[in-house]
Amino acid sequence: MSAISRHERVDPLFRGFQEEVVAMLARHEGSIERFRDDRWEYQHGGGGHSRVLDGGKTLERAAVHFSHITGASLPSAATQHRPQLAGAPFRALGVSVIVHPRNPYAPTSHCNVRYLEVAPGEGSEVFWFGGGFDLTPFYGFQEDCRFWHQEACGACLPFGGNELYRRYKDWCDRYFYLAHRGEPRGIGGLFFDDCMLGTFECTFEFVAAVAWCYLRAYDAILTRRLPLAWGPRERAFQLYRRGRYVEFNLLYDRGTRFGLESGGRTESILASLPPLAHWTYASCPDERAERNLKEQYLQVQDWLASGGEQSGSPPVDGMPGH
Amino acid sequence: MSAISRHERVDPLFRGFQEEVVAMLARHEGSIERFRDDRWEYQHGGGGHSRVLDGGKTLERAAVHFSHITGASLPSAATQHRPQLAGAPFRALGVSVIVHPRNPYAPTSHCNVRYLEVAPGEGSEVFWFGGGFDLTPFYGFQEDCRFWHQEACGACLPFGGNELYRRYKDWCDRYFYLAHRGEPRGIGGLFFDDCMLGTFECTFEFVAAVAWCYLRAYDAILTRRLPLAWGPRERAFQLYRRGRYVEFNLLYDRGTRFGLESGGRTESILASLPPLAHWTYASCPDERAERNLKEQYLQVQDWLASGGEQSGSPPVDGMPGH
Repeated sequence: MSAISRHERVDPLFRGFQEEVVAMLARHEGSIERFRDDRWEYQHGGGGHSRVLDGGKTLERAAVHFSHITGASLPSAATQHRPQLAGAPFRALGVSVIVHPRNPYAPTSHCNVRYLEVAPGEGSEVFWFGGGFDLTPFYGFQEDCRFWHQEACGACLPFGGNELYRRYKDWCDRYFYLAHRGEPRGIGGLFFDDCMLGTFECTFEFVAAVAWCYLRAYDAILTRRLPLAWGPRERAFQLYRRGRYVEFNLLYDRGTRFGLESGGRTESILASLPPLAHWTYASCPDERAERNLKEQYLQVQDWLASGGEQSGSPPVDGMPGH
Repeated sequence: MSAISRHERVDPLFRGFQEEVVAMLARHEGSIERFRDDRWEYQHGGGGHSRVLDGGKTLERAAVHFSHITGASLPSAATQHRPQLAGAPFRALGVSVIVHPRNPYAPTSHCNVRYLEVAPGEGSEVFWFGGGFDLTPFYGFQEDCRFWHQEACGACLPFGGNELYRRYKDWCDRYFYLAHRGEPRGIGGLFFDDCMLGTFECTFEFVAAVAWCYLRAYDAILTRRLPLAWGPRERAFQLYRRGRYVEFNLLYDRGTRFGLESGGRTESILASLPPLAHWTYASCPDERAERNLKEQYLQVQDWLASGGEQSGSPPVDGMPGH
C-alpha cells in the first residue's frame, strides 16, 4: 500500500462520482441552480453532503447523497455476513442516487456505492465494498432494458466475466422484490454487498466501473425518453406505480430502515421517496399499461438473451416492447 | 355461558359495527353507491368483507373491513404477551376502519376492534380482545381534540374508570409514534391489546362501547369540519402530512406488517394508505400550519385538563386553537 490510506482513495472517488451525477442530471434539467446543497454532520463523527433537486422542470426529484461517517460501534445491521464485527469502530463512505423524472416514459433509477472499514479489537482492519444500480420503468422499452443490462454486464466483465454479472444480477432480482405484490420493483441491474474481489485495488476499480456505468447508461436512457410526449393518462399510471416504490422503500429496503433506526438524517434518507404517489383500491388507472408492464417487464428474465428469454409471452398488442 | 359460543356473539357485533360505520360515512358522502362490496376468502379458513369507497366526493377514501378467519397455527406475531400460544389453532375476528376525507380541515381517523380465540393443545381455550381508535388532524381544533378524548374517557369509565382511560390513552400515544420524525401520528385516543377486563361478558361490552364511541365521535367531528371551505394551500399541506401517515403504516404498524407477511389480502391491508401523498425535501408547503400543528397538537398531552396541560406553549398566532 502507498502512504495514502484506503479510505483516502475512496473518498475522492465517491465525491467525484456525486459531482458528475449532479452535473449529468443538471444537463437534463437544464439548470443546476435548484439543486440544494446541504452539508450535515453525523452525531458520532463525520457527515454528509446532500444534493437534492425537488420539484424540477424535468426531474421531479433527484437526490444525490455523499456521506463519510465514523463511529465507535458498528451496528449489527450493517453487515449481514460478519456478525462478529458488530460493536467495533468503523468508517463508512457512500453515495446514493435516486431520480424520479417527471416524464412517465423516463424510468426511475437508483444507484448506490459504499465502502466500509472496521477495526476489530484483535486482528487487522477489515474492509469491503457494496453497491449496485437498478431501473424502474413505468412504461417499458425492450431496447432500454437490454441496454441497461448489457452495460451492467460490461462493467462486470473485466472483473469476473459473465459469471460476476449473473451473480450480482440475480442478487438484485432477489433484493428488489415486493413479496406482498408478488412482483419485482423494476427490471433490476446489479446488487452486491460484503464485496471483495481479491484485492482492495481490484474491488476499488470494480466499484468505480459500476458507478460510471450507471452514470452513462442512465444518461443515455434519459436522453432517449425525456423528449417523449405524455399526458394525464400516463401521469396517473406513473403516480399509481410510484406507490409500489414507496412500499418497497418503507417496507423492505434495509438501507432505509437501517438509516432511520440508527439515527441517520431523516430528510436525506427519505429523499428516496417519490414526490407524489397515488394508491387506488383494487383498480388501476391504466389496465393495459399495467398488464404490459407486468407481463413484459416485471418478470425476472435474461435481458441479454437474444429476443428475450422470459417465457414466450408475446407482446400484448403486437407493438414491439410497448 | 349460554349455548351460543363466544365468537358467535362477537361476529354479529362486529358485522353490525361495520354496517353502521358504512351507513354513517355514506350519509357524509351523500351516497352509498360507490362503496365497493368485496367478499374474499382467507387461504386457511374463513374470510372477509371489505367495504371501500375510493375517490368519493367528500371522502377521498374510506375503508371498512370485517374479517372472520380461522387457522391451524397462530402466527407468533399475533400475540405479544402470550408467546406460548404460537402454533396453536386459532380464530380471529376484526373490524378496521380508516377514513381519509377530502377536506383538509376534517381529520383522518382510524378504528380497530378485534377478538382472538386460541385452543392450545392442553388447557382450556384462551381468548382476548384488542382495539382502539385515534385521530390525525392536519389542521387542529382544540374543541375536537378535547371532545375526542372526553368521548374516549366516557367509553372507559363504566369499565375501569379514569385509570382505564389513562392506561389505554398512554398506550395509544406510545404506539402511534414516528420515531424517525420525533412526533406522534396524531392526537391519539385509545389503544389496547391482549385485553380481558375480568370476564368475556364485561370485555365484550367494553369493546362494543369503544366501537360505538368511535362512530359517534367521528360522526360529530365530520359534521363540524366537512362544511369548512378550503383551497390549494390546505390541500398541499394535507398531502404533505399524509406522507407521514404512509410512513407510519409501512414502517411501524404491526397490523400492516403482520397482515402482509402472513399472506393477508394486500388490497384490503393497504386500503389504509391515503389515496394521494406528497413528500417534499427539507421544506413544507405551509410552514405556519406545520408549526401550529406540531406545537399545539403533535405533543403528547392531557386533553382532559382544563385549558390543556401541554407545556405552556401559547397558541402561535393568538387565534384559539388555530
